[in-house]
Amino acid sequence: MALTHFNDEGRAKMVEIEDKIDSLRVAVARGYVYMNQDTLLAIKNGRVSKGDVLAVAQVAGIMGAKKTSEIIPMCHPLLLTGIDIAFNLFEEGVMIEATVRTTGKTGVEMEALTAVSVSALTIYDMCKAMDKRIRIEGICLMEKKGGKSGHFINDASGLERE
Amino acid sequence: MALTHFNDEGRAKMVEIEDKIDSLRVAVARGYVYMNQDTLLAIKNGRVSKGDVLAVAQVAGIMGAKKTSEIIPMCHPLLLTGIDIAFNLFEEGVMIEATVRTTGKTGVEMEALTAVSVSALTIYDMCKAMDKRIRIEGICLMEKKGGKSGHFINDASGLERE
Amino acid sequence: MALTHFNDEGRAKMVEIEDKIDSLRVAVARGYVYMNQDTLLAIKNGRVSKGDVLAVAQVAGIMGAKKTSEIIPMCHPLLLTGIDIAFNLFEEGVMIEATVRTTGKTGVEMEALTAVSVSALTIYDMCKAMDKRIRIEGICLMEKKGGKSGHFINDASGLERE
Amino acid sequence: MALTHFNDEGRAKMVEIEDKIDSLRVAVARGYVYMNQDTLLAIKNGRVSKGDVLAVAQVAGIMGAKKTSEIIPMCHPLLLTGIDIAFNLFEEGVMIEATVRTTGKTGVEMEALTAVSVSALTIYDMCKAMDKRIRIEGICLMEKKGGKSGHFINDASGLERE
Amino acid sequence: MALTHFNDEGRAKMVEIEDKIDSLRVAVARGYVYMNQDTLLAIKNGRVSKGDVLAVAQVAGIMGAKKTSEIIPMCHPLLLTGIDIAFNLFEEGVMIEATVRTTGKTGVEMEALTAVSVSALTIYDMCKAMDKRIRIEGICLMEKKGGKSGHFINDASGLERE
Amino acid sequence: MALTHFNDEGRAKMVEIEDKIDSLRVAVARGYVYMNQDTLLAIKNGRVSKGDVLAVAQVAGIMGAKKTSEIIPMCHPLLLTGIDIAFNLFEEGVMIEATVRTTGKTGVEMEALTAVSVSALTIYDMCKAMDKRIRIEGICLMEKKGGKSGHFINDASGLERE
Repeated sequence: MALTHFNDEGRAKMVEIEDKIDSLRVAVARGYVYMNQDTLLAIKNGRVSKGDVLAVAQVAGIMGAKKTSEIIPMCHPLLLTGIDIAFNLFEEGVMIEATVRTTGKTGVEMEALTAVSVSALTIYDMCKAMDKRIRIEGICLMEKKGGKSGHFINDASGLERE
Repeated sequence: MALTHFNDEGRAKMVEIEDKIDSLRVAVARGYVYMNQDTLLAIKNGRVSKGDVLAVAQVAGIMGAKKTSEIIPMCHPLLLTGIDIAFNLFEEGVMIEATVRTTGKTGVEMEALTAVSVSALTIYDMCKAMDKRIRIEGICLMEKKGGKSGHFINDASGLERE
Repeated sequence: MALTHFNDEGRAKMVEIEDKIDSLRVAVARGYVYMNQDTLLAIKNGRVSKGDVLAVAQVAGIMGAKKTSEIIPMCHPLLLTGIDIAFNLFEEGVMIEATVRTTGKTGVEMEALTAVSVSALTIYDMCKAMDKRIRIEGICLMEKKGGKSGHFINDASGLERE
Repeated sequence: MALTHFNDEGRAKMVEIEDKIDSLRVAVARGYVYMNQDTLLAIKNGRVSKGDVLAVAQVAGIMGAKKTSEIIPMCHPLLLTGIDIAFNLFEEGVMIEATVRTTGKTGVEMEALTAVSVSALTIYDMCKAMDKRIRIEGICLMEKKGGKSGHFINDASGLERE
Repeated sequence: MALTHFNDEGRAKMVEIEDKIDSLRVAVARGYVYMNQDTLLAIKNGRVSKGDVLAVAQVAGIMGAKKTSEIIPMCHPLLLTGIDIAFNLFEEGVMIEATVRTTGKTGVEMEALTAVSVSALTIYDMCKAMDKRIRIEGICLMEKKGGKSGHFINDASGLERE
Repeated sequence: MALTHFNDEGRAKMVEIEDKIDSLRVAVARGYVYMNQDTLLAIKNGRVSKGDVLAVAQVAGIMGAKKTSEIIPMCHPLLLTGIDIAFNLFEEGVMIEATVRTTGKTGVEMEALTAVSVSALTIYDMCKAMDKRIRIEGICLMEKKGGKSGHFINDASGLERE
């Protein structure tokens, strides 16, 4: 098996997908933002009152998913039909999970991974005044449905983190 | 110390920075893309011949850094004056390091972190046909110069990974 | 009936539409830009000679409609198949009417409303040196065809303005 | 006084501003979204629990302000140094007020007006399933400081609406 | 035969295409970048070692093709299904050839021409420190397949340049 | 003299410019769109009545210039302070001349060349139904002022075309 994004000269291209069939495709991706306890507490409290870091991160992640083919050079444009992002607070930070859906010719894992990355960067940005050592970890694909390659579940994913 | 991106009603805003002085600001960020050995070998070989995953990832990262204020909701637009991205292959994958510079009123850590994230996602995209279990890890700020907060070096960063 | 853009946690999401069928959808929206008589006269004269505020507003509105899913966070991307914008001068300003068409899974009222808004802002921008009290009023949906909800005509719209 | 966005041939241009001095500039703009009582109540309730239409509208408005020079053809790019958006619920809908700041060569009224327009369109989008007759009204400049033209307060604005 | 992008008032619109059928459409476009011998040699050498102007130009061209409907006002958005760009060095410069594919309602010649233009501008940008007299020439459509107008081959194209 | 956009590893970077001084910079670029006589006549007539290809091309070119650093990977973002585009009809087509101005740390020739390219592509797009053999030729820098390299006039430019 070889890298698929290169033409005969060895240069990058956006590979042909017009022969692939339109089918429902779903991808789920995850990632983790680690931060110190004061910052995590501020996010929690913000959520109880009105200041809501996660509400901003969620809007950013959804808008980021729609920008995927503009940001990732060899990604095909797709008409996304659904994007949802969930957050879970754990003892060391925030877990982000994005689910992206389309009816199209190619999968949406990059869109789900981009949603997670943009949400994570937004959390970082809004908390960086409190903690300069925030880390973004464990961004990976969790699950993928639709298309020729069938149903994939990532059993090696960072599930054990929590 | 409190979160700074919220107004008096507790809603998010882009905070006022017009009283901050223009100074040279530099930020260095890092991240890691873990992949299986076949994929890592393909990147290495691709680089020896003409197919160069890292060349594409580098262009993507530089263009991504310039999009930071468009992607991260509360980020201020800045005139970046320099962006450089380096890659190091280690035994389990690719280490990415981005350096971003500006002469402006606020720091460029988000731009450096976005450059790393977009480069990492691009490597993921170009290798995903070979490995569905790629993980992006350890995205963090390494160093930051300029502005009121002075010179910061992140001694807790993931340096020991390599 | 409840707001549809929220997930079970109460956070915003881009709602699933993959089960909706592709059909021809058309939306017509309107809006009004009120200005002083000197400014209105300048637009009229500009149109007679070569300086054409409305030509610029029209290009801006068409390009704005294509940006709708990038500007409005929970909007689905759609392949617009037609955009037309008409202007009518009345005694107090300019009436803008945008018609947007697609063959897709969801309606295009937001695209038509965005076209009107961007055209109105462009007229404002090009005339603001002459009149600082320009107002944009009465932006609403006039008509909507296609999809499950059928043919809608807005009898409460600001038609009586003119 | 004549329209300033036209060149000698009468065609549009982006006017020269390099001779203008950098100064602190602030603009405040307003707008109103009228809706039926059920929809207004849903926004209120959503805000008490977690579903927060206005949180999404605020992020959209801030990101929209940063896109102004990309959306409005003859607008100059500016480094915005602060954006804040406030919402007030009144008996018939939502009042939006945006304040935009910069240190630059030209004013930021278009950025404030764009922030209001994008926030209003976002509220419309998130409520349109409940009310097809929502109207956006009274978008105007309220106040403007900085630059050669000094301090402007719009006494003809729609203040009496509330 | 008349210009098709104008409405009844003579103003521009994005023409209706919803009645056109989805079919596979391919377009090939070309262009030439002329430069002095030192610059051409630097590109050649860069390619042998690691500095690869053409790798950057190729990524730029692919990303540019995906931006076509955002850059060209009356262009319809399309889901491109493949983009490939090839370069040939000749004695006076670089020949660029872009092939763009889609399954959609309208042709992709503008996307292929935009890919060529953006690649050419990128080569210009990366070489301009060495040569201020670079010229971009001979951008034209070479071939077009699919849709009602059938197979077109441009026999008047600049083939004889090489 | 060597290519300046490469780092020590030979990969592309956005070169550091923070040590360069802010000065007024102006660039003038040109290009030519060749077409058949019927199409040229349609543009002329369109201009006499209301359908104005060149008005659309001009708005597109101005908006394109503002997108330069987003389209050309190694281009620095700049705050453009003025953009003007002129058209001249000659016996075989349309000559486009763009003038771009800034007060900044680096020159604006890429912005002027991008303005010309986007205007040319827009003319192509709006006329392509009438002529499939349109060619874009002779895009080059005419003049450049400001910065260390002083005043440059391109005496080898395609002036003799007309």
